[in-house]
Amino acid sequence: MGTGVRPKTRAREAALVPKILKWSWRGTLGVPDSDVQASRQHKLALAKQIRELRPHTVILPYWEARHPDHYHASSLGYEGCFLAGLKALPLEREPFRPFKILYCTSFEGMPATFVVDITKEYATRRRAILAYRSQFRPAKSERKGRVYLAIDELDAKMDLLARRNGDLIGVRYGEPFLQKEPMQVDNVVELPVRSI
Amino acid sequence: MGTGVRPKTRAREAALVPKILKWSWRGTLGVPDSDVQASRQHKLALAKQIRELRPHTVILPYWEARHPDHYHASSLGYEGCFLAGLKALPLEREPFRPFKILYCTSFEGMPATFVVDITKEYATRRRAILAYRSQFRPAKSERKGRVYLAIDELDAKMDLLARRNGDLIGVRYGEPFLQKEPMQVDNVVELPVRSI
Amino acid sequence: MGTGVRPKTRAREAALVPKILKWSWRGTLGVPDSDVQASRQHKLALAKQIRELRPHTVILPYWEARHPDHYHASSLGYEGCFLAGLKALPLEREPFRPFKILYCTSFEGMPATFVVDITKEYATRRRAILAYRSQFRPAKSERKGRVYLAIDELDAKMDLLARRNGDLIGVRYGEPFLQKEPMQVDNVVELPVRSI
Amino acid sequence: MGTGVRPKTRAREAALVPKILKWSWRGTLGVPDSDVQASRQHKLALAKQIRELRPHTVILPYWEARHPDHYHASSLGYEGCFLAGLKALPLEREPFRPFKILYCTSFEGMPATFVVDITKEYATRRRAILAYRSQFRPAKSERKGRVYLAIDELDAKMDLLARRNGDLIGVRYGEPFLQKEPMQVDNVVELPVRSI
Amino acid sequence: MGTGVRPKTRAREAALVPKILKWSWRGTLGVPDSDVQASRQHKLALAKQIRELRPHTVILPYWEARHPDHYHASSLGYEGCFLAGLKALPLEREPFRPFKILYCTSFEGMPATFVVDITKEYATRRRAILAYRSQFRPAKSERKGRVYLAIDELDAKMDLLARRNGDLIGVRYGEPFLQKEPMQVDNVVELPVRSI
Amino acid sequence: MGTGVRPKTRAREAALVPKILKWSWRGTLGVPDSDVQASRQHKLALAKQIRELRPHTVILPYWEARHPDHYHASSLGYEGCFLAGLKALPLEREPFRPFKILYCTSFEGMPATFVVDITKEYATRRRAILAYRSQFRPAKSERKGRVYLAIDELDAKMDLLARRNGDLIGVRYGEPFLQKEPMQVDNVVELPVRSI
Repeated sequence: MGTGVRPKTRAREAALVPKILKWSWRGTLGVPDSDVQASRQHKLALAKQIRELRPHTVILPYWEARHPDHYHASSLGYEGCFLAGLKALPLEREPFRPFKILYCTSFEGMPATFVVDITKEYATRRRAILAYRSQFRPAKSERKGRVYLAIDELDAKMDLLARRNGDLIGVRYGEPFLQKEPMQVDNVVELPVRSI
Repeated sequence: MGTGVRPKTRAREAALVPKILKWSWRGTLGVPDSDVQASRQHKLALAKQIRELRPHTVILPYWEARHPDHYHASSLGYEGCFLAGLKALPLEREPFRPFKILYCTSFEGMPATFVVDITKEYATRRRAILAYRSQFRPAKSERKGRVYLAIDELDAKMDLLARRNGDLIGVRYGEPFLQKEPMQVDNVVELPVRSI
Repeated sequence: MGTGVRPKTRAREAALVPKILKWSWRGTLGVPDSDVQASRQHKLALAKQIRELRPHTVILPYWEARHPDHYHASSLGYEGCFLAGLKALPLEREPFRPFKILYCTSFEGMPATFVVDITKEYATRRRAILAYRSQFRPAKSERKGRVYLAIDELDAKMDLLARRNGDLIGVRYGEPFLQKEPMQVDNVVELPVRSI
Repeated sequence: MGTGVRPKTRAREAALVPKILKWSWRGTLGVPDSDVQASRQHKLALAKQIRELRPHTVILPYWEARHPDHYHASSLGYEGCFLAGLKALPLEREPFRPFKILYCTSFEGMPATFVVDITKEYATRRRAILAYRSQFRPAKSERKGRVYLAIDELDAKMDLLARRNGDLIGVRYGEPFLQKEPMQVDNVVELPVRSI
Repeated sequence: MGTGVRPKTRAREAALVPKILKWSWRGTLGVPDSDVQASRQHKLALAKQIRELRPHTVILPYWEARHPDHYHASSLGYEGCFLAGLKALPLEREPFRPFKILYCTSFEGMPATFVVDITKEYATRRRAILAYRSQFRPAKSERKGRVYLAIDELDAKMDLLARRNGDLIGVRYGEPFLQKEPMQVDNVVELPVRSI
Repeated sequence: MGTGVRPKTRAREAALVPKILKWSWRGTLGVPDSDVQASRQHKLALAKQIRELRPHTVILPYWEARHPDHYHASSLGYEGCFLAGLKALPLEREPFRPFKILYCTSFEGMPATFVVDITKEYATRRRAILAYRSQFRPAKSERKGRVYLAIDELDAKMDLLARRNGDLIGVRYGEPFLQKEPMQVDNVVELPVRSI
């Protein structure tokens, strides 16, 4: 809905990203742009998909965000995973629930439980995000203060954030995640990240 | 200072614990019981010891506690480790700073960064703590409400706490730790502890 | 929805619990299992019931929970109580609002405003919870890690939690509650629970 | 130290307040004005006094405050109470520890655990505070922005704070307190303060 | 819905307030009393209005409140503003998004980002709020404890809150606001409000 | 104390910075390196200096920091400012207290009350910090993981932090500050920083 680009352009971009990131599956399950809601219908569609894909780990957007679609997707994702495990639901396939649910965000403000070193993956990740270029303004074409971010501003902002997160653990680029349950550690003398 | 038992008894108990836990070094550096303070003198004594032992990981009491000695030991420990790394201090040996500083507590109220499965070590840990038995009242000899915990109450309390911490990560006995810097994780699909 | 047991079994269990706990009323108001929502229809049904029962105190699930039905029931409960007090709603009976709304949880993570000593009531509470046994796996029949808790694991977990909550106030079994408004105390020198 | 009034005036005021409030004991234990510290010497003096007075409940200033004497008095008070219970200290009298430690503040910013209705006691409390009038500027004599509060401004500020705290529990004047341990409640259906 | 007064009375009151406050526009967009929801329909109606009025600053109720209509209005308001900026929505007029979104509350509990001195505006604000008098009980006519606040109690409560907020910045009457983004300050030596 | 460089070098560097930053006064008041404490003696020395300089605004290090000197300087600074206002202290000159106390930090973790745009001042600030180069390792000369930061790493880290803080308010370089009292704002429609 963002920029009013032609649906064809958006579809082409959306098809490109899974190739860059080597995804085996990608889908939006019919949830409409700018109207993501944790409705019964969307939750059941997701539960069905979860039973088919049987993911060990699910990564959801953090539950606070600037874009309402992002925080509603977080609720929808959690409740869809929960429903997938209920035996008596009128859904095909065996009940299944992911083992792990993690929360991530590409923007600031989420208190990180842990950070992952993505220095090696950063170039690929950057290529994937910039592939959605129709959602952003061309570089330098318009003044800041407008609603949409220019593509070069986005690139700089992503770089800044990933470097700041990397700095927290002493690497070049980092990606923060949050989990609600406590971390488990096997060996306290092998923990990375200098304290002092 | 706690119970007014004879110093000899305390010394015997203190000598027993390192054998149970296989410590290679144990010392109090002359810091007096019931008067632990992060004084310059105590910090330099600790810094000197840190330079000799060169520990990779230092575990300090959490900085909030019921016993003032415990929270003052936390400050003393941190500042001693910091001083140990300063080149120009009039201390022998090469400057050294531990890589990692962790905080722990045997009582509740500390927000855990992570929990360690101590199911295998629990019996040994229990034996070590109960070795300090002169600091506690004999079992059942006096009514609750007095200042000192009875030894059987201590044992039950420790068991309850370790089981509750274990329950958080799905094991029998757990020990919580806190670190101030973020955790670093290598592989998000290999994280333990079920989310849902 | 949980375990796909026969509805008859669930109904029998549900009928048993009010007898154990001596409830004068029990109802689900037609809110469907696994699809609890704070919808207008459910809120009006609840408001109507509140006007009939005129409860002084309402206890709701805490607003964060693992099971979506639990946190949606929390919103539904609060908003139903609110609507019950509005004069102009097309509902029969006199407007009424409970005096007190408390939040409770059977699992961890809620910051307690206060704890109640339930040592005397614990055996009855245990009997009531275990009466819902069709919702849990038989003891020891399957490996941990599956979606459903075994009945003996549930029993041990409830015991651990109630004992930990009891320990906070110095009794055997405790139940934590949260209230949003400040507590009021009449006499500061008669407060229970030792501080030091 | 505040206003440089003659020590005689301060002494007269200090002697007046215990009469207004019907205190059986009042003392400063030689701790100097503007230099309150939790030193060993002051802690031992307090511990000795605690063993003599054997108070069931001790009320300390909150540990964050504008005036350094207030927050240092909070540490000094806590650690003095702790020492009072240690058998082996070279202090006369039987070891004793207060049952309850509460924190209070006459200014804002402390998260209250509970509020006490002081409507009946307010006039007496006001008289006691205003008795220390040499510590404040005379009413209206100087412009706001100077270091010392005018006596009429103090009176208005105290009234405002006590009324706001009273409003939280539905009474005219209230006094907030904080305790670190959880509250214990006997009967959830007899709790005061309307929720909704 | 509150008091069942005649709709005519409510309409007359609602028409009076914009005159007192010199509003250029007022509307409820068909959102029903006691049933405010962030539904697609209401969000689109608001987005359309935002595009017409093009407000630089939008003030929403804080997202926690006693009245469900207030917190639902907060979500509805935010998401309506967000939708107003999406080019591809089937709405007339040019996409527009307010520059600034602030949160306010007339009751306590919101952590203020900043406070505005409203001493000069207080009398007008008071007149506007008291204009809605049919929503409150007549003064002193009924005992406290009932659902509706008496008009004189409301007046006293508003006065108390505005004075407490004023006191935080050293003025007679203050109004608190919250913003989610950080404040920006040009000159650190020109900041108002004494620190010490 | 940091690097054991010759005192002469340190003195030369320390003399250079006030010229770069155009300070009218600079001093350490005899507080020793690596042993900053909020002692009575240091507090009185600072109070005396405050009475002489009569600063309107004082900027202190944040009260949590990696370096103990930094957090002890925060307490020392606050309590020195407080003492400076006490009439009866045996200090020369007229009692004085700064109007405003702000907290800042050059490293992460402090919750900012506001951010200042320092884009124009950044080059000068960078020059001033790099002037203390004897406190850091020469660029690239040693492996990361050692105690001291290399000068080029410091430069990159400062740049990253200032850019991240700038990004929060939409400028190139920003500096965060914290104040304990609430902000006061005159005009809510002139607030900078886009919300949405």
